[in-house]
Order: sequence, then structure tokens, then C-alpha cells
Amino acid sequence: MQRYFINERAQDGQLVLPKAIAHHLTTVLRATVGTPVELVLADHQVYLAKVATTEPETIVKIDHALGKNSELPVDVTILCGLPKTKEKPELIVQKATELGAKRIVFFEAQRSVSHWTSKKQQKKVARLQKIADAAAEQSHRNYQPVVAYYSNLKQALTANPADFRLVAWEESAKQGEKSGLARCLQKIKAHQSLLAIFGPEGGLTAGEVDQMAAAGVQPVGLGPRILRTETAPLYFLTAVSYACELATPVN
Amino acid sequence: MQRYFINERAQDGQLVLPKAIAHHLTTVLRATVGTPVELVLADHQVYLAKVATTEPETIVKIDHALGKNSELPVDVTILCGLPKTKEKPELIVQKATELGAKRIVFFEAQRSVSHWTSKKQQKKVARLQKIADAAAEQSHRNYQPVVAYYSNLKQALTANPADFRLVAWEESAKQGEKSGLARCLQKIKAHQSLLAIFGPEGGLTAGEVDQMAAAGVQPVGLGPRILRTETAPLYFLTAVSYACELATPVN
Repeated sequence: MQRYFINERAQDGQLVLPKAIAHHLTTVLRATVGTPVELVLADHQVYLAKVATTEPETIVKIDHALGKNSELPVDVTILCGLPKTKEKPELIVQKATELGAKRIVFFEAQRSVSHWTSKKQQKKVARLQKIADAAAEQSHRNYQPVVAYYSNLKQALTANPADFRLVAWEESAKQGEKSGLARCLQKIKAHQSLLAIFGPEGGLTAGEVDQMAAAGVQPVGLGPRILRTETAPLYFLTAVSYACELATPVN
Repeated sequence: MQRYFINERAQDGQLVLPKAIAHHLTTVLRATVGTPVELVLADHQVYLAKVATTEPETIVKIDHALGKNSELPVDVTILCGLPKTKEKPELIVQKATELGAKRIVFFEAQRSVSHWTSKKQQKKVARLQKIADAAAEQSHRNYQPVVAYYSNLKQALTANPADFRLVAWEESAKQGEKSGLARCLQKIKAHQSLLAIFGPEGGLTAGEVDQMAAAGVQPVGLGPRILRTETAPLYFLTAVSYACELATPVN
């Protein structure tokens, strides 16, 4: 069933759909009076609703809360050094949304080839936010992840505190570091926050790794193969899902 | 360091590089006599070699085996219902190679929109094999995964026996099936084989799921979010890596 996010609360059990959603539902999907639809409202609950009227406005009547929750039990932010192509941030945002990230943050790393001027930033972030919003609907999330951008690592670290902060560092993997991520995922409890940092194509500089160490960020390896910059965050999010949702559910 | 796959064995500690590799090494990377390079030979071992001569042929001298192994401890085949765009099989092949798959197989599922005629098949598979080969070099694998195509599920199942055979089935996930994958990954031992099947965009039909059940394939869920057809195999491979390489190394 189609799912839409509407950042509002129902009034007397009903809701006027925003124009873009009303258009999609009634024109693209050809919904008529009585068509059921899933809505995620401002409380992040999923409701079953039915179309009550389509003209002059599309109004839906809320039937009941479905009690569906597809969110990771822990609150995950990924912080990615800006990759060099336009496609990679888009791929990261789409897939990280499917895999449950709450915040998807890019920062200009020392080895980032791309550079987003302050003019560009707003437009770029808005485009990525749209991709996240659409992917959140498709993957049946209860939250639309927030996309953000910082022009350097220092700002990104200051703006993103978390109970656990990790960095995927290639050198850790090369040295055979294997258990840091697993140890963290065995310790973490429901609703705690977890931040993971990933370098751009050229990797992180020693200076950046030192800066993170000073901020208490722990380096971890993601296995013995070398992962591309866009693959590493997806590996990380999947590991969180597998460890906390499938292997030993976190409460 | 640059890594190349050469399906040969060294003769008296040296090797004439195939022309394409010689060209890449000496012309693109401007290697000269003495430049070190990593070679994966027919025994799937990684050797440190050094350029001995560049003219008339490029000959390298094998220094020593590096004892590097980045292969998953278990032997994984993914079997994917052919997705509808050209890009998705390419993305699956590239990422599945990075994530350690040994065989990447596509089959025409009942709901596959794309159809590869027998003429097309060879060309399509050859192109995907090239992507796999390049990704294997980049991700520092010891094996180049084999890409294959079958025109239906029955053939694909017959051609791909394995110690454990799973199917990622959306309905399992919807019913809250959580532990099948984890149970399998806790049981599996080093060098055992594992096959996982994924539907195309429209999902698997009930008929296909029945056919798999009759063949002893076990349905498993991949968590509570709905994953796109190209994301599911990457989730699966990452879960195998996390479970068998990072959380509780499989021996």
C-alpha cells in the first residue's frame, strides 16, 4: 500500500492532504473515495486512512494506528567525506535511508575533490533530502532521515554528538582490526545514538584521524576487503541492522 | 599498491605479463624496472612482484607470497531475479564483488521485466564479468567472482547446489521473521557453501516460492524495512561478512 509522510496531526480523525500528495494519490494512483492509504503523521506512527472526499480538497479519514515500526532500535548518523561524483551522494542517501539511518551528513574532507560552495549547499542538500524522503516512503520507514552538510570535519563533529562515535579507517582494517564494531554493537542499548564516519575516495588524512581520536572517536575495521567510499556506510548500517534486529535483538 | 589477477603460475620465479596488463602497468601507471606490484596467480595467492624488464615484453620477478587473504570464510553465491534496468545488475555485480561473493548469478524470474535473449546473454554476461574482475582488483580479493545467467529459476537451482540455500522473501519479513538468517550464519562452518535468492522488482511469485520450498530453500527475512531488489543481496552479503568475519569469526 502507498505510504506518505505528513508532518501534521489529524484533527477530529481527519486530515486535508497537502496538494502534492493529493495530486499523486488521486491523479497518479487514481485513488477514489474509499481508497486506503498509509500515512505517517507527526508522531511517527503509521495510520491506515481512507479517502473521504477528493474535491475540492482531498480529505482522508484516519481509520486506526497500525502499530508498525520499522525503525532501527538505535539512532544512527552517518557522516561521509564528500565523494567526487554527483551520483555517489545520491546512492548513499537512497540506500542509507532504506537501511535505517536517522541522519545522513556529508562534510568536506581534506581529500574531498568536490567542494560545495555555500550557494550550492542549499540546493544540493534539498535535492538529497528529496531522495531521502522518497526512499523513506518506499522502504516503509517511520522517519524521513535528515540530510545535512558541513564544510569541515570540526563543525560536523561538534554538531553531531552521540553515545558511540566510530570511524571506518582503512588502516584499522589493514592491521586486521576485527572486533571494534562488534564490541560496540554488543554494548549498545535501545535508543542510544551511534555515529560513524567514512572518508572520501582518497581516504582520511592522518590529521583527520588524529582530530577524531582527540574527540574520542574510535577507529574500527569493516572486514578484510577494501570497500569503496559509497559501500562502507552501507556495510556499516547493515551490520547495525543485522546485529541489533536479527542476530540479538536490542532492547 | 596495484593488484592484478593473472590466471597462470610463475615459471622459475618469473612471469611474462599479458599485454593488456603490461600496457596498464607501464603506460597508464608508468611503471619502470623495479616497480612493485601485487599479483594474484592461479593458486589465488597474492604475490609481491617487481618489474624486471619492460621491453620487448614486460616481465616481472616474483619476490614472495604475501599471505594475504581477504575472502569470506564461507563460499557465497547470490542468485538474483533479473532487475529491469541495465544499471542495477551492474551495481549488484560491483558491490557484491566488494562484499565477497564467489558467484553472482542472474535468472529470469516470472516477474522480471527484462528478458535476455540467448544472443544477448553472452554479451551481457561478458560485460558484467568485466565489472566483477575490475572490482575484484580494487577491493583486493583473492578470487574474481564468476558471473552467470540462467533463463529460469529451475535451471538456476539445479546448477547451484549449496550446503545452505535461502530465499529473501518479503512476506517472511512482513510476518516478522527475524532469526532464520542469524540461525544459518551461526551454524555455517568455514568452506561450507551458502546460496541466497532474491526476487526482481515485483518480487517472487507464490509459484516460485513453492518451487524453492520443494527444493529445500528456506525463506528468511532481512529486517523490517522494505529493501529494493538491488539492496537486498548487498544486505545479505554484509550480514555474512559481519557474522562470519567480525562478530564471531568462523573457523
